[in-house]
Amino acid sequence: MARIVMKFGGTSVADLERIRHVAALVEDEATAGNEVAVVVSAMSGETNRLVGLVDALEADIAPDGEKRTSAIEDEYDSIVASGEQVTSGLLAIALRRRGLKARSWLGWQIPLRTDMAHSKARIAEIESSAIGPSLEGGNVAVVAGFQGVNERGRISTLGRGGSDTSAVALAVALKADRCDIYTDVDGIYTTDPRIVKDARRLNRVAFEEMLELASLGAKVLQTRSVELAMNNNLPIRVLTSMRDVGVPNPGTLVCHEDETMEERVVSGVAYSRDEAQITLLRLKDRPGMVAKVCRAMAEANVIVDMIVQGISKSDSAANLTFTVGKRDLEKALAALEAAQDEIGFEGVKSDGEVTKVSIVGIGMRSHTGVAQTMFEALAEKNINVEVIATSEIKISVLIDAEYTELAVRALHSAFGLATT
Amino acid sequence: MARIVMKFGGTSVADLERIRHVAALVEDEATAGNEVAVVVSAMSGETNRLVGLVDALEADIAPDGEKRTSAIEDEYDSIVASGEQVTSGLLAIALRRRGLKARSWLGWQIPLRTDMAHSKARIAEIESSAIGPSLEGGNVAVVAGFQGVNERGRISTLGRGGSDTSAVALAVALKADRCDIYTDVDGIYTTDPRIVKDARRLNRVAFEEMLELASLGAKVLQTRSVELAMNNNLPIRVLTSMRDVGVPNPGTLVCHEDETMEERVVSGVAYSRDEAQITLLRLKDRPGMVAKVCRAMAEANVIVDMIVQGISKSDSAANLTFTVGKRDLEKALAALEAAQDEIGFEGVKSDGEVTKVSIVGIGMRSHTGVAQTMFEALAEKNINVEVIATSEIKISVLIDAEYTELAVRALHSAFGLATT
Repeated sequence: MARIVMKFGGTSVADLERIRHVAALVEDEATAGNEVAVVVSAMSGETNRLVGLVDALEADIAPDGEKRTSAIEDEYDSIVASGEQVTSGLLAIALRRRGLKARSWLGWQIPLRTDMAHSKARIAEIESSAIGPSLEGGNVAVVAGFQGVNERGRISTLGRGGSDTSAVALAVALKADRCDIYTDVDGIYTTDPRIVKDARRLNRVAFEEMLELASLGAKVLQTRSVELAMNNNLPIRVLTSMRDVGVPNPGTLVCHEDETMEERVVSGVAYSRDEAQITLLRLKDRPGMVAKVCRAMAEANVIVDMIVQGISKSDSAANLTFTVGKRDLEKALAALEAAQDEIGFEGVKSDGEVTKVSIVGIGMRSHTGVAQTMFEALAEKNINVEVIATSEIKISVLIDAEYTELAVRALHSAFGLATT
Repeated sequence: MARIVMKFGGTSVADLERIRHVAALVEDEATAGNEVAVVVSAMSGETNRLVGLVDALEADIAPDGEKRTSAIEDEYDSIVASGEQVTSGLLAIALRRRGLKARSWLGWQIPLRTDMAHSKARIAEIESSAIGPSLEGGNVAVVAGFQGVNERGRISTLGRGGSDTSAVALAVALKADRCDIYTDVDGIYTTDPRIVKDARRLNRVAFEEMLELASLGAKVLQTRSVELAMNNNLPIRVLTSMRDVGVPNPGTLVCHEDETMEERVVSGVAYSRDEAQITLLRLKDRPGMVAKVCRAMAEANVIVDMIVQGISKSDSAANLTFTVGKRDLEKALAALEAAQDEIGFEGVKSDGEVTKVSIVGIGMRSHTGVAQTMFEALAEKNINVEVIATSEIKISVLIDAEYTELAVRALHSAFGLATT
């Protein structure tokens, strides 16, 4: 017997038919003798409907010009949280209709306590003294995801991807053996199957790999939920909710690295099109110059990712190239212009048409020659590399966006990811 | 400065435009220097949508044939209560947008404690220690109607008309000066304006009169809310939410009787088409015979209203005539058939095509000749009276349903109700 937390997102509970199907999946785990807590999102479309109502009222002009204050955020959270309230009740009924004992739990009923941040609250504490004994008594706990209660007794919401984090945090608090994240894909793939037809589902991925893959644009799991699971050694399984009960659905297990994983060197090829490249030309090579650039970006709330310093071939002056999020490009350029004298550079070039392509694998720690294989594969296709960044388990390159698919296919093939 | 509770039903908050209008009405009271708590229903149609989702799942057949158990009622209440949760948040935002301080209060946040009855819970206690100081601090309290929290910490709902009762109970707990019930009519009328064109809005109605009028089918206020107000000497004002701010909107004040009221003898003419008449023929005139009939009806869960014993002209045997709710007629007849030997009667006649018409007025206590005026008016129109029932402030007659409008108009005219 195990204790399991199952999480279902909005498309998995989109209508009564899907909710009935989720009840069947839950029953399958419960009748196998497991203690089961289920975390649900709002029915898809419902959160948008509720946010739309709030937005329409917020568009009204207040006499004092009041914008979104914390008082309005309190109401926003209370309104939006009603979506998960409905789903949790409906799933509890559907489970009862299958003959299971089940009840819904709202954030304030558990209670799941959060800090005071609005619409993106962080979980402070999950009380297990009520829900734990309920599970031990054979009840399925159906938990409204995405919501908690703050120290003023108001409903708070956890922000985007919050239901994943609810589920993992609940699993940690309940000392669950596993957290199963049901979604609309059947696992984590070696790369994007829309680009590489023979991309392969991975049976296991290490937490560290998943963090790199998630932050690189493989948006199956929210980064915070993976960190939380890693820190608490809680295995996460990613699998599809679209498969019938009884049909094999192994998904991908995200867990601490084990021997199986180390046999492979590279686990996946990720890419992100949300990048932009900025090059500062002919920098005065003064101490602390890079720090000044970073400070200017931080003050403008722009996150700097890859960063490389080079020597211009023509005049031996130093250039500095770095990447920012594509939607931050204008803001970054404005901040650099304002700080030009302070930083000390002569010109700036930028390019929004770039892609970051990365290979990720914990096996890279103990294997040499990985970088060589990567650059040979890219060179063979005449793909020019603008910037390189590496970590212990990842190598990322910035390339012209036109070459994205070509590069991903070349790397997927070069590391033999299609074969098992 | 007064403390006021304002209540708005589903049609008054049907969409964002109506919610903005309600905010204007609330602002009008608040800027006049009053402390204001507002009780809101769900946006019209929303409760039905939510109930529809629950009903669809409940139609699924459980393996153990489980019907609506208390566990499912818990979920029903939690799901349905989300409707008021949304409206209370939206109105709080709309008030903020008008520059007022406002916050929403859910049942569990007040808390408004109820007993354990499902979907028709009764209010056990309303805590005023949080909401009271909030009002004193100049905040408008926007309270989600219809909902509370029970002793197991689950959301409970108060059943049909529950928002009226929420509002009155809240007003009592907050020691409010008045409870204003906003609805889609502009007050209590001397009779149904659809039948009598010159029916007149009453400025004041006594609690006792309102109770008789409400139970007789003038369904503006829920009976429980009137009883609660009467027992706590809390004036209720019934007025329309459809009028613009600044346009006179006196409504009808429901309060303890005063001298103004005693000047009139009859306040209104009410009617109810939901009646059915049953006559037991040639009863054996044994002691306790009426009690036996009443017991048979009580065991069948049928409420007996008017009851009269008469002598048949033909054979001097006793007949017993009484009325039940029209939708209970079949059930009542089946119960009587089963108990025929026990009660001891020879035959039964029934008629579902009857109407109860009543005149109501606290002035009747101290005036004679009211009954005479009533029966003369009916006789003049050749309306046959089947059964008569009287109380201190009411005379009801049962007539053939075809004569309903004729009787209502004749009585409205006979008591001079159209003139002020």
